[in-house]
Amino acid sequence: MKDTEQDTEQASAKNLHGNPAAHAPGQPVVAVIGDGQLARMMQTAAIELGQSVRLLAGTPESSAAQVAADVLLGDYRDLDALRAAAHRADAVTFDHEHVPSEHLRALIDAGISVQPRPEALLYAQDKLEQRRRLRELGFPVPRFSAVTSVADAEAFYEEAAGQVCLKACRGGYDGHGVWFPEDREALTELVTSLLDKGVALMAEEKVRFDRELSAMVARTPSGEVAAWPVVESEQKDGICHRAIAPAPGMSKEDDDALRTLAEDIARRLGVTGVLAVELFDKGGQYWINELAMRPHNTGHWTQDGSATSQFEQHLRAVLDMPLGDTRPTAPVTVMVNTLGGATEPAEPVPSRMAQVWRRFPQAKIHLYGKEHRPGRKLGHINLSGQDAAATAREADLAAHYLVHGRWADGWVPA
Amino acid sequence: MKDTEQDTEQASAKNLHGNPAAHAPGQPVVAVIGDGQLARMMQTAAIELGQSVRLLAGTPESSAAQVAADVLLGDYRDLDALRAAAHRADAVTFDHEHVPSEHLRALIDAGISVQPRPEALLYAQDKLEQRRRLRELGFPVPRFSAVTSVADAEAFYEEAAGQVCLKACRGGYDGHGVWFPEDREALTELVTSLLDKGVALMAEEKVRFDRELSAMVARTPSGEVAAWPVVESEQKDGICHRAIAPAPGMSKEDDDALRTLAEDIARRLGVTGVLAVELFDKGGQYWINELAMRPHNTGHWTQDGSATSQFEQHLRAVLDMPLGDTRPTAPVTVMVNTLGGATEPAEPVPSRMAQVWRRFPQAKIHLYGKEHRPGRKLGHINLSGQDAAATAREADLAAHYLVHGRWADGWVPA
Repeated sequence: MKDTEQDTEQASAKNLHGNPAAHAPGQPVVAVIGDGQLARMMQTAAIELGQSVRLLAGTPESSAAQVAADVLLGDYRDLDALRAAAHRADAVTFDHEHVPSEHLRALIDAGISVQPRPEALLYAQDKLEQRRRLRELGFPVPRFSAVTSVADAEAFYEEAAGQVCLKACRGGYDGHGVWFPEDREALTELVTSLLDKGVALMAEEKVRFDRELSAMVARTPSGEVAAWPVVESEQKDGICHRAIAPAPGMSKEDDDALRTLAEDIARRLGVTGVLAVELFDKGGQYWINELAMRPHNTGHWTQDGSATSQFEQHLRAVLDMPLGDTRPTAPVTVMVNTLGGATEPAEPVPSRMAQVWRRFPQAKIHLYGKEHRPGRKLGHINLSGQDAAATAREADLAAHYLVHGRWADGWVPA
Repeated sequence: MKDTEQDTEQASAKNLHGNPAAHAPGQPVVAVIGDGQLARMMQTAAIELGQSVRLLAGTPESSAAQVAADVLLGDYRDLDALRAAAHRADAVTFDHEHVPSEHLRALIDAGISVQPRPEALLYAQDKLEQRRRLRELGFPVPRFSAVTSVADAEAFYEEAAGQVCLKACRGGYDGHGVWFPEDREALTELVTSLLDKGVALMAEEKVRFDRELSAMVARTPSGEVAAWPVVESEQKDGICHRAIAPAPGMSKEDDDALRTLAEDIARRLGVTGVLAVELFDKGGQYWINELAMRPHNTGHWTQDGSATSQFEQHLRAVLDMPLGDTRPTAPVTVMVNTLGGATEPAEPVPSRMAQVWRRFPQAKIHLYGKEHRPGRKLGHINLSGQDAAATAREADLAAHYLVHGRWADGWVPA
């Protein structure tokens, strides 16, 4: 499993460090494709386990490449780069779902352990395939239809009584590739324009939900599964804003049922690693919204609020090691994202962190090493407490200060 | 704070990675002198905070150099190497206490923030200076004496009624540099031989204690202090074997008193960063055993059992940022070291980890990336639970399996 510079230095991928000592003797190496914050947080989990991550990164400045000791620079759409990253790795896994399936099949043909496998990953890559498969398996999904013409769109508009959400089948995330047309005309215009650009589309009935939930689970290639408590998540502009763990007011029966649902989906789709099942909750009726097959924003709370973080669990799962305890370590843990504001405050980040800690010494600040950009996910704050509402309020205040450099409630230090 | 290869490439220190992107924009860089597991675990804390560590490491294979993205290879006794590591760093701190004071003073003269400062560090480097200073300040220390001749040793032997422990004033750790001569003859022989070798010595009355404790605290240059609950520690052959947090059976009054003691020592000696005060407990009477001015083995439990780990706290303290919440997150957390056994078991490490997790899914395994060597600190296990005795037993079993590849209680999986 130990690699030399020579081994990894291949045609299309540049070895950033050339450090043959980046791997502990006798310990597994996980190749992570992608260089965002999820890969970064896998790296911290790997270090503590004595394992190591080899990164296939786009740039040396990226969130994960900054902190990894074994980094290949290359493109995740380039098979040679993927081969170089996968060389002698014990498993290949992902920071995102955009690696072409045919490349993953080529890696598998070469005897490499790819987790999750492309047959499963397809259902996170292609929303239409996912809906069809979930419906076929009897899981609760909103009414949907493929849209290959304006006529398809209009027919579905009728069927759904105008409550239509249009989605790109592939490539969407964080609200990208999802549209809520106001009326029939807006829909037909949008469909015409997107089909012209060659975007594969589907339409789905807009679910009028009370709240969104996320049921997260990990599964190993051997079939072990372990679910965390279901969390309530709140989106702003299609991007995760906050997660409250466990979901307030949820009965033990419903929590059990949704954990079982997520476990069943993982089993039936053959998912390995961490799976996030995003759900709509309408008065205790549930629909599946999205699937993600990797650590997920709604699982960041596990870093400070569960016996096993999703990043450690993901590594254990893709290496087919036994899964960790998923129990919460506090009555409630709230995660709030810190996205770049419209402008960056004059106060430097370390000083804003200090202000947050002065007021909330229990706030766990996680930052991704990224430069400020409006709307960019720069970090998150986890805060554990006794009471969901009070803890959520504190976590919101802390995140707001980190983003804006001021207290939303006008608080002044004593 | 961002550095280029050119900046750090200096005479006597070799830049292992040459990665100009290893530091997040606008975030502090902490230069850590030393490459052991303490530096390794500072790196994981730094990554999550969005900060970064620059390491001055002896070898690329060392525990910390394996996982750091910005590594200078050089000698911690070489001022040029220290200067290169400290260049543009926001603070310089340590994985061990052996950096020469005069070099640290040279760094300070060059405007660098060295934490802890050499005036404080002296009391962790030199046991005789420490004893003198602590006694002078009225802190409880065992009876002691400098030993510069056999006559000194013999006089102290009388004074202590034969209950003598001989110590090298400098350079000792993990039981090295501490001797318990059986009788007067053994003492005089030892003293003669050590003085001949030029070892500076002191003698101390052997304390007959019931148990050992550790009171850990962090202090910032601005003077903020925060103490964790006092833990019970158990040594084997002079090396930390186990820590139980909080110390079983300790009254709130005694816990408060010992936390205050540690805070007072930090203040009076001007310590910054994490300070461990190792104590002897004889029926509720306490003596100071050792001081360590860095994260300490008896504080590893904080990674999984406290709101703030000692590694995060150390970084916050040396950067003069507000300190984190030190409350425990479980009724009890037990840490057990995994030292290399006499021989390495045939079963590979990942398989032993898997066995431990199959039985104890809640066991948090931390490994340091080191090759097996008998008696070497290779990792530790943290395990949280409800009851000290039961949790300690489980943690011991888990650690024993990781070291020896067998269950000490003969357990057979169902």
